[in-house]
Amino acid sequence: MSFDDLFSDRIATRIQTIESRLVVGIDPRLDRLPPDISPDDPEQALTRLGIGVIEAVSSVAAAVKPQIAFFERWGWRGWRALEAVCRSASEQGVPVILDAKRGDIGSTAEAYAEALLGDEPGTPGPFVDALTVNPYLGSDSLEPFIARVRDGGRGIFVLARTSNPGGGEFQKRENDPLPIFEQVARAAQGWGKGSQGSCGFHGVGLVVGATYPQEIVRVREAAPGSFLLIPGIGAQGGAIESLAPAFDEQGLGALVNSSRGIVQAFEKDPQRRWQEMVQEAAQQSREKLQGVLSP
Amino acid sequence: MSFDDLFSDRIATRIQTIESRLVVGIDPRLDRLPPDISPDDPEQALTRLGIGVIEAVSSVAAAVKPQIAFFERWGWRGWRALEAVCRSASEQGVPVILDAKRGDIGSTAEAYAEALLGDEPGTPGPFVDALTVNPYLGSDSLEPFIARVRDGGRGIFVLARTSNPGGGEFQKRENDPLPIFEQVARAAQGWGKGSQGSCGFHGVGLVVGATYPQEIVRVREAAPGSFLLIPGIGAQGGAIESLAPAFDEQGLGALVNSSRGIVQAFEKDPQRRWQEMVQEAAQQSREKLQGVLSP
Repeated sequence: MSFDDLFSDRIATRIQTIESRLVVGIDPRLDRLPPDISPDDPEQALTRLGIGVIEAVSSVAAAVKPQIAFFERWGWRGWRALEAVCRSASEQGVPVILDAKRGDIGSTAEAYAEALLGDEPGTPGPFVDALTVNPYLGSDSLEPFIARVRDGGRGIFVLARTSNPGGGEFQKRENDPLPIFEQVARAAQGWGKGSQGSCGFHGVGLVVGATYPQEIVRVREAAPGSFLLIPGIGAQGGAIESLAPAFDEQGLGALVNSSRGIVQAFEKDPQRRWQEMVQEAAQQSREKLQGVLSP
Repeated sequence: MSFDDLFSDRIATRIQTIESRLVVGIDPRLDRLPPDISPDDPEQALTRLGIGVIEAVSSVAAAVKPQIAFFERWGWRGWRALEAVCRSASEQGVPVILDAKRGDIGSTAEAYAEALLGDEPGTPGPFVDALTVNPYLGSDSLEPFIARVRDGGRGIFVLARTSNPGGGEFQKRENDPLPIFEQVARAAQGWGKGSQGSCGFHGVGLVVGATYPQEIVRVREAAPGSFLLIPGIGAQGGAIESLAPAFDEQGLGALVNSSRGIVQAFEKDPQRRWQEMVQEAAQQSREKLQGVLSP
């Protein structure tokens, strides 16, 4: 497989080199494009927007997170754009966390892992550093992904506690002595065995929404070796200030995602160059995040 | 949207017309192709195999179930093959249950619904009757799919109890007074409101593995209005005989999937026409299933 170093060490080095814990989510919508990108050809529009965002944030973002649904929305042409966007990130040296939340069993999970964390030309796989996955089907369903974490230098982020209002319905039921999100977090300690990096973290991360800061604390305690991927700041209402407990003393252990707040920043002033505005918005988010770390 | 009738009524009519409760899963692998299909061009191979299977089973299978991972495995070319396969099923009048197990929140879930249950040319959406989805993110995450069930004549099958060995890890925890799979089944009664057909069932089905027959009974009781999609017979070890409680007196209420057992049937005799053997295998499974129904 394509990566020599462990994902956790790679991302830790990146975080420390560019001093950023920010992940920029790429959720491209054809009805919200910068004025110089035409929606007429969806594939070209997705590709230009995606690559343009990566260029704008390449020295500011610890990683980019393309959301695969916004590419699938346009069928196979969208998938071709996704591949081009992931390839460009890789060429620009920006780690890619592909947000696909896949989860299935046996040979099907293996096929997903091959497509999205594999080496097959013609798929996004070769350019993807880490993938989000869904734990509902249990440990064996994650095994093909975990194998690529252990042996291929890839990473995964397993959904624990999602940022949406209904996230608690199954993940954190009332009166549940061990809510599922915490059971998932504990299990991640086992899944991460064999991919422990010299940075102190392993390659099996967890997704925890910024909208539930007290649950970030519980996940942090249950899974001290996992990087946390934290969506839900900005548009979804999570406050950056409450994220301090996600980080260790070196400021490692968490990545914080912002999507619309950064990519759509150009809408504020149609007269200015859109990439400049995206870069500024990313800079601001990155600095806010740096302010959260212990001094 | 593209379907005038409700999914549940459409599938019930199909079941009764061709007297079949069988779903044929299409999980195409390039290392297990019939001798007259070359693996050299993956897109062509997937397309030819998929369409060939549908031709073979078109009068025997209540529906076909392409597994999207085996197409994604080949990137955008695989997605183009998937679209061609779904289109062909639709042209041949065979309902398509697309097995994608998607699950995400807000506008992302909406984008998945548009891609896979929508009307956008260039996506599989227009040719898909029903989609499998993952409930881990809660009711709000399913809403864009449910909207298409209520207003678009589509169906969904929500994962409840999966057929794999680790399926119970989160879905059915020890000492859990209300296991998640049963909570999901109960919730389906609410999700199905507004899509109740004259057949007595609504459009929000549930996935329950054949490997856990006693849990099929519990799901059947908790969700009397849901069609059950039952994988796990054949290669995975579930016994057809134990599936009787899934059906009502009219023999409605469940669809039973077989994938490898049917599609790979041609491997038994490389001298014979492969589609003939696939058809025979489908016929046999269909008859076994008919034998399970109350007389």
